Amino acid sequence: MTQTPASKTAAGRFFEDFRIGDTIRHATPRTLRDGDASLYSALYGTRFAVQSADTFAQGLGYPKSPIDDLLAFHVVFGKTVPDVSLNAVANLGYAACLFLEAVYPGDTLSATSEVIGLKENSNRQSGVVYVRSRGFNQHGRTVLDYVRWVMVRKRDHHAPAPAAVLPTLPEAVEVADLGGAAPRIDKAAYDVALGGSRHLFEDYAAGEKIDHVDGVTVEEAEHMIATRLYQNTAKVHFNQHSEGQGRFGRRLIYGGHVISLARALSFNGLANAFHIAAINGGRHVAPLFAGDTVFAWSEILETAPLPGRDDLGALRVRTVATKNRPCVDFPLREGEGYEPNVILDLDYWALAPRRG
Amino acid sequence: MTQTPASKTAAGRFFEDFRIGDTIRHATPRTLRDGDASLYSALYGTRFAVQSADTFAQGLGYPKSPIDDLLAFHVVFGKTVPDVSLNAVANLGYAACLFLEAVYPGDTLSATSEVIGLKENSNRQSGVVYVRSRGFNQHGRTVLDYVRWVMVRKRDHHAPAPAAVLPTLPEAVEVADLGGAAPRIDKAAYDVALGGSRHLFEDYAAGEKIDHVDGVTVEEAEHMIATRLYQNTAKVHFNQHSEGQGRFGRRLIYGGHVISLARALSFNGLANAFHIAAINGGRHVAPLFAGDTVFAWSEILETAPLPGRDDLGALRVRTVATKNRPCVDFPLREGEGYEPNVILDLDYWALAPRRG
Amino acid sequence: MTQTPASKTAAGRFFEDFRIGDTIRHATPRTLRDGDASLYSALYGTRFAVQSADTFAQGLGYPKSPIDDLLAFHVVFGKTVPDVSLNAVANLGYAACLFLEAVYPGDTLSATSEVIGLKENSNRQSGVVYVRSRGFNQHGRTVLDYVRWVMVRKRDHHAPAPAAVLPTLPEAVEVADLGGAAPRIDKAAYDVALGGSRHLFEDYAAGEKIDHVDGVTVEEAEHMIATRLYQNTAKVHFNQHSEGQGRFGRRLIYGGHVISLARALSFNGLANAFHIAAINGGRHVAPLFAGDTVFAWSEILETAPLPGRDDLGALRVRTVATKNRPCVDFPLREGEGYEPNVILDLDYWALAPRRG
Repeated sequence: MTQTPASKTAAGRFFEDFRIGDTIRHATPRTLRDGDASLYSALYGTRFAVQSADTFAQGLGYPKSPIDDLLAFHVVFGKTVPDVSLNAVANLGYAACLFLEAVYPGDTLSATSEVIGLKENSNRQSGVVYVRSRGFNQHGRTVLDYVRWVMVRKRDHHAPAPAAVLPTLPEAVEVADLGGAAPRIDKAAYDVALGGSRHLFEDYAAGEKIDHVDGVTVEEAEHMIATRLYQNTAKVHFNQHSEGQGRFGRRLIYGGHVISLARALSFNGLANAFHIAAINGGRHVAPLFAGDTVFAWSEILETAPLPGRDDLGALRVRTVATKNRPCVDFPLREGEGYEPNVILDLDYWALAPRRG
Repeated sequence: MTQTPASKTAAGRFFEDFRIGDTIRHATPRTLRDGDASLYSALYGTRFAVQSADTFAQGLGYPKSPIDDLLAFHVVFGKTVPDVSLNAVANLGYAACLFLEAVYPGDTLSATSEVIGLKENSNRQSGVVYVRSRGFNQHGRTVLDYVRWVMVRKRDHHAPAPAAVLPTLPEAVEVADLGGAAPRIDKAAYDVALGGSRHLFEDYAAGEKIDHVDGVTVEEAEHMIATRLYQNTAKVHFNQHSEGQGRFGRRLIYGGHVISLARALSFNGLANAFHIAAINGGRHVAPLFAGDTVFAWSEILETAPLPGRDDLGALRVRTVATKNRPCVDFPLREGEGYEPNVILDLDYWALAPRRG
Repeated sequence: MTQTPASKTAAGRFFEDFRIGDTIRHATPRTLRDGDASLYSALYGTRFAVQSADTFAQGLGYPKSPIDDLLAFHVVFGKTVPDVSLNAVANLGYAACLFLEAVYPGDTLSATSEVIGLKENSNRQSGVVYVRSRGFNQHGRTVLDYVRWVMVRKRDHHAPAPAAVLPTLPEAVEVADLGGAAPRIDKAAYDVALGGSRHLFEDYAAGEKIDHVDGVTVEEAEHMIATRLYQNTAKVHFNQHSEGQGRFGRRLIYGGHVISLARALSFNGLANAFHIAAINGGRHVAPLFAGDTVFAWSEILETAPLPGRDDLGALRVRTVATKNRPCVDFPLREGEGYEPNVILDLDYWALAPRRG
């Protein structure tokens, strides 16, 4: 934290406070509890059987139901906000996000971020900061590892800029790197009636598009409760007094809330793709506000067996979320850009059981 | 689930997809956790001491506080929605609902529904489906058993209809069938100061009416959080984009949310009637919308000792909920129908301790 | 509870129902669960490391993360409402509030209130009732002890009044009485990076003012969910049908919700002051309504080592909350009264680790 001697208040880092190679240890480790799983369920209505029922998870080989992958992601992400993006102008992207260990109720997550890229903008008022953030459990094992880049204001526009360093980021996580957070499951024990669909890994094919049909309207109380659950302190989500005078005139909904809403909607069509193994990249194409209704559709980009494993296969999925527009015709592009109602374009690897 | 070969998306069953004798195994078993109990408490403000305090429950003979009966009901009900009522025009009623085993945090519930009645409507566009739904715990024991009937659309109006089969339903659950979910309690240990009222089983008499006095206003975020907690996917509760163009122009609140609100309000007058042993029947007389304020009153319809038990007695209670209208004068009927502010007419058996 | 023979409904006590020396045992003991901790976190976004992470708490000497002090306070307070303040015209103040034992998930709290003061108002329509309320855990140990005074209506304006008795209340809790709820901590194990600030006890000085910077807008669903979590039944928080016709035309937010919001905001500046040891006094200067944005600032009134302990020091803090007004200039007084946007003036002792 950058704190002036005169003040006890954390003001967040500005562009010139970041240095290549610095590793920031973030505040407030967080024990994930049964109650967090319940709240996550109530906020998104997720229905994946592995995360919902201890018995179902145990039947496959889990010790108990794991915490939803995205809940773990949001908690780790939340820790990085006060140190990385409190003075961010924009969240530009994620990449190379790997889920490496399952997280269970009772586990405690902490996080660090290493500065791996810096590039001042030509206007000298801000710059792009690339960090590799990692979440650790109480045993010190890495549960999550991802790269994120944000545009951060400079404190002093005249401050000298460091030489630009841009990290090399993969277009997608390698299939060989997937599956660390999923124990070898007993695929014969996977009950498709309880799972919610008869479709397993082999039933999906690249190019297939799925309309997830349902829509869900978001309320201010919901996204703020969620974002606070993640101890994410980004000001734009909570303060109508200041945001009312800002660019949108309204509180902006945390982008991760949109990802979780889209993932929960995707159950209808991807019910057995129960685990997110990696996020290849994601763009928050347009903002979401309270009162908007979120819809989603997905395209299967690629299917791949997991090397050395015959229990699970990997589906590379592009999930697109829209606001106030059903997805029966799979809206995405319009001209050079996105269709105006598209809000999220997410590329990830999900794992689904293989046919027995 | 009915899934067309071309689609991975569950479209729900239509009237002609149901066959007498079919048993549907519903998706997504659900472990009920401490966090679900906390959320239920926060959503309704329930104050029954047995469900609130492990120590109070243990003093009576429970291993710990059981999950609220209605929370277990809503979770089982929620599982049936994608298979039974996704294409429902209306939820017509419940009957013969028995709570057979206490549910504790850590228990996992799953559900099935058996088709026990079918009757096409004369317009041939829809029909009534009767199902007997059952909730099971992780030991395979039935915790809940009830009949529900819904009006379901036909996919094809010209599809032939099966011969009408109508189940015989009891007007009320027999007293001899009550109490399975309540352990024999140590009534001498029942502390009425902690229970919240000095009135025990013997203090209630048939014909007695109780105004529960308080009113509670419902917000969109609250009913959606509740309904998602139950993994209930009925579209009308969540999607303002489509409902805004529908019959009411608004999201419709899940009827079970009203039951839970009325039950929580009924603490003020029925504080020691801590366990719902059966629901004889229920009608959602009119819809509830966000912004409305719910009030409730109850009439004691009947009192009955439990056969073979001297610890608990059964109160047959009719609880009536209204919107935007206090219940000091016990509103119910007006002309041939219900008073216009009445939203719920519920008939159930609650158990209360007997005088020591 | 005062219940007329004709009614099963608790009407609450009126001024003439209170007698000096009476001790009221309050209804509905409450087990605090993991889920309550999660909900508290989601409602306020608290980030104090001790309450957030079992590992952090254990490193200091706690058996696991304790329940947030204010959550325990609100639960005890909530129990007293049906018996003490259901017919209150106004909540006038708190004093001498001591946190005596840490509360952990799984503990069950119950409460009593002893009537320690009574004074009829000169208009003979109401009177001031002083109670000493205590919260107990399942072992019968006092976890919380405080005095509260409320103005309560008389049932009958002509009823005779008792002789006035006014308790002697301390201006502040003695330093010697602080710390009972905090185990002796291993201060060398206190990791300031995880704690969220490099500032420890010795870094604060009397007279220092801290703007907590952030603002948080409150929604109806949020304050009602919180207040129900505490089983607080005060009518003004929940019933828009009646409040819409009342003095403010709106539901009034529970004053304790404001205290928790301000405390959570105060993390930014007081991150390591992780435990509230006592509340010396508090005034709800003006009401808060949904849609308002809460800001806060604090002044260090006094710093004191804890007698006989070198692990923790006590900071006497005045935290002031405002609505719809940032606190960069520390708003407080205006003329004879409070600045019009000030809503809370709270004086408490918080404990922070001493330098190693």
